[in-house]
Amino acid sequence: MSFIGKLFKQSTTVAMMGGLVFMVPYWWVEAGGSVGHDGMVLTFLWIALILIFAKMSGLIERLGQPSVLGELMVGVLLGNLALLGVNVFEPIKTDIYIMFMAELGVVILLFQIGLESNVKEMTRVGLTAFLVAIAGVVVPFLLGAYLIGPFLLPGLDTNTYLFLGATLTATSVGVTARVFKDMGFLHSKESQIVLGAAVIDDILGLIILAVVTAIVLVGGITLTEVTFIFFKAVFFLGSAIILGKILAPYIGNVFSFISRGVGMKFALAFSVGLVFAYLAHLMGMAPIIGAFAGGLILDDVTFKRFRKPEFCDELEDIKNHTSQKTKIEVEKVIDHYEHKHVEDLLQPVGQLFVPVFFVFTGMSVDLTTFADTAIILTAIGLTLVAIFGKLVSGFVAGKGYNKWVIGFGMVPRGEVGLIFATIGLGLGVVTDGVFSVIIMMVIITTLVTPPVLAFLFRHSKVS
Amino acid sequence: MSFIGKLFKQSTTVAMMGGLVFMVPYWWVEAGGSVGHDGMVLTFLWIALILIFAKMSGLIERLGQPSVLGELMVGVLLGNLALLGVNVFEPIKTDIYIMFMAELGVVILLFQIGLESNVKEMTRVGLTAFLVAIAGVVVPFLLGAYLIGPFLLPGLDTNTYLFLGATLTATSVGVTARVFKDMGFLHSKESQIVLGAAVIDDILGLIILAVVTAIVLVGGITLTEVTFIFFKAVFFLGSAIILGKILAPYIGNVFSFISRGVGMKFALAFSVGLVFAYLAHLMGMAPIIGAFAGGLILDDVTFKRFRKPEFCDELEDIKNHTSQKTKIEVEKVIDHYEHKHVEDLLQPVGQLFVPVFFVFTGMSVDLTTFADTAIILTAIGLTLVAIFGKLVSGFVAGKGYNKWVIGFGMVPRGEVGLIFATIGLGLGVVTDGVFSVIIMMVIITTLVTPPVLAFLFRHSKVS
Repeated sequence: MSFIGKLFKQSTTVAMMGGLVFMVPYWWVEAGGSVGHDGMVLTFLWIALILIFAKMSGLIERLGQPSVLGELMVGVLLGNLALLGVNVFEPIKTDIYIMFMAELGVVILLFQIGLESNVKEMTRVGLTAFLVAIAGVVVPFLLGAYLIGPFLLPGLDTNTYLFLGATLTATSVGVTARVFKDMGFLHSKESQIVLGAAVIDDILGLIILAVVTAIVLVGGITLTEVTFIFFKAVFFLGSAIILGKILAPYIGNVFSFISRGVGMKFALAFSVGLVFAYLAHLMGMAPIIGAFAGGLILDDVTFKRFRKPEFCDELEDIKNHTSQKTKIEVEKVIDHYEHKHVEDLLQPVGQLFVPVFFVFTGMSVDLTTFADTAIILTAIGLTLVAIFGKLVSGFVAGKGYNKWVIGFGMVPRGEVGLIFATIGLGLGVVTDGVFSVIIMMVIITTLVTPPVLAFLFRHSKVS
Repeated sequence: MSFIGKLFKQSTTVAMMGGLVFMVPYWWVEAGGSVGHDGMVLTFLWIALILIFAKMSGLIERLGQPSVLGELMVGVLLGNLALLGVNVFEPIKTDIYIMFMAELGVVILLFQIGLESNVKEMTRVGLTAFLVAIAGVVVPFLLGAYLIGPFLLPGLDTNTYLFLGATLTATSVGVTARVFKDMGFLHSKESQIVLGAAVIDDILGLIILAVVTAIVLVGGITLTEVTFIFFKAVFFLGSAIILGKILAPYIGNVFSFISRGVGMKFALAFSVGLVFAYLAHLMGMAPIIGAFAGGLILDDVTFKRFRKPEFCDELEDIKNHTSQKTKIEVEKVIDHYEHKHVEDLLQPVGQLFVPVFFVFTGMSVDLTTFADTAIILTAIGLTLVAIFGKLVSGFVAGKGYNKWVIGFGMVPRGEVGLIFATIGLGLGVVTDGVFSVIIMMVIITTLVTPPVLAFLFRHSKVS
């Protein structure tokens, strides 16, 4: 009956062109492609695999490691099985729906972390976070551009060293935030400082990129231009947080007139995160920074007119005809779960999307990059500088904080470092060799942070 | 500073080609495209809009209508605002990530409905469901192919009438299932019958499509071929459900050794749904049928070793030092929420994805199709036959059931009807005019079902 199979294939295409794209024949066409309906159904399988593998990797928690390390390692494994001739997972790397879920995953993670944080706690450590951010940008840049760059990679163009320095300034907060969350230290002062510094670093990153790009292209940039970039970002973030904080309760009230239900509560919260992610992107910042800010402005007051978790109704009933002591305890349970209802609603969504991000990140690690000894040695040198530069920023935090935790929290370069390198590649100032070295530095800083932070949490005091 | 903007655009492309697609510059590139990182961030905005509009449309519940009708209508509105010159929502229609979320949404919906159903209840109405399914296929087919087709659209090829009849046999269970769920009748016998009949219809649909396609192409099909298609589908579904039912508890136990946590519980359940959706697709069936079967095999036993909802621990504490009466009540609450824990975990995920499906379905309704009076009249005639044909199937159900609810539950043709039409178009037997008429029939049957079912639920007895 292959004639039927062929036909269906054919008619799929026809249908796609008919403008009725969504309604069409994934139905009886065999799986295979990576875009279109076949691809969608195949993606369902990938999601299931990623979820199960990610949760299995949670075994690493029994070794005292944060589960994010397990997810990254599962990703590295899946992404490099092709080296052993197992190609079955390769399509995941180019699956656009998985990419989308990964992107949304890290946005949801930072939104969740924003929800669990609050503006007051953040502003209390604001100045420290600012100093940490500045030091974490200046020291790595100077070391990279003027010391270790010319030393490790002699004979290259000055602009190349500039980009290398710029790459070292980046802070990618996803991994660190997840480690803090995994290990229950999200409310430590150190965590607040790192999160705050990461937000500030994102703004500084915009400026650095503009400056080095301008130097490469036209030899320089005016102070007015730098100031404009700076104020645009600061103004956006500041006004978004202040306005959001003021308006959130009113928005909550307005929507509660339409529905006080849990569905609306969830939709409203989630939408705020997404809209902020989008606005940040429009302002030239990372969507995750916007999502974090969106989470920050939402609190109990926003949702005070919405329904409590369902089981609270039943507990209210019980509360009303029991002893005084039990009544107080039941009330405590109700209050506790009402307080964190939005966070609880987001948890399953996070459990679906967030592992996709970390497994996918792990998958983008190409172990063959580590085959060349000369490049490896250079990369190790660069990585040490990358770590040292950010550790210095931890020491800027001053007394009363665990400097090592702050310093190492700033270490992962993640996607932000790669963006710098990629733009440098596009400008022709970053060579292929330098690009490889940078990628390795990004990989190592990302993979090394979770176990080091876990070690620090166990063996030193964190406030 | 437009030179910087231009540069970033340029380097985005470079980065995309570098194989590091995911890690790259959505960061500082302006929004605009519909694929790639810009598109992803723009999609975040669409998701937020869809969620908020969908929840706002929930106001329709105050008129006694199921909320799915509101979501469909919001979709129709957003999808046709271009007629009034408002083009801003047009990109949603071709946003591949939104399409993916819609696909996943209806899969999640049917998985949720499978979770809430159980095999025993289903088999109890099995024979009735089978009779309903058969009647709901035979009557519309005969009416469409031999009576109303030649009458309403005279002078066309016999094969065209065959395809028209085939189109009328389809049952699209998404809309009906959602109405049953919205209005709290998911456990009624009528609901079980319609769900069962929809599963059987999916198998019959495979056969009908194979037969009519073969007639068009080679003039006929052998009984062996028909039997093969039939048994492949029946064998898959049957063995999946039986094997799944037997193995589920063991799978649950194995994974509980790795982690008893809520994260694993969620991942395991969700993965079963996705894997079954994929397997159904491999067998040539609709993924939603697989997802439904996946939900059906999971029950309390599968998850008995996993952790209860978090608040249950606190309630256990309270239970242990209170009066006997309160103790019993608290226990009831614990049991109730432990029982439906997996469903509760899936709820926020459903709240995120399911509205995307219905709003998107609504958006694919093109109101301009209704501009031609002659076509409209033909479409209305066809729609009446479509409704009448399925109502007959309700009357086959026999005594003790609400025949009207069953009949109308079978009415929506949705995507399944369109698939038939599209394949006919690809074969050249369905003309553009016939295609328009079919689309209108699909639209009307989909939009008319929710209010009619709501009316029936309020004004007649449902068991």
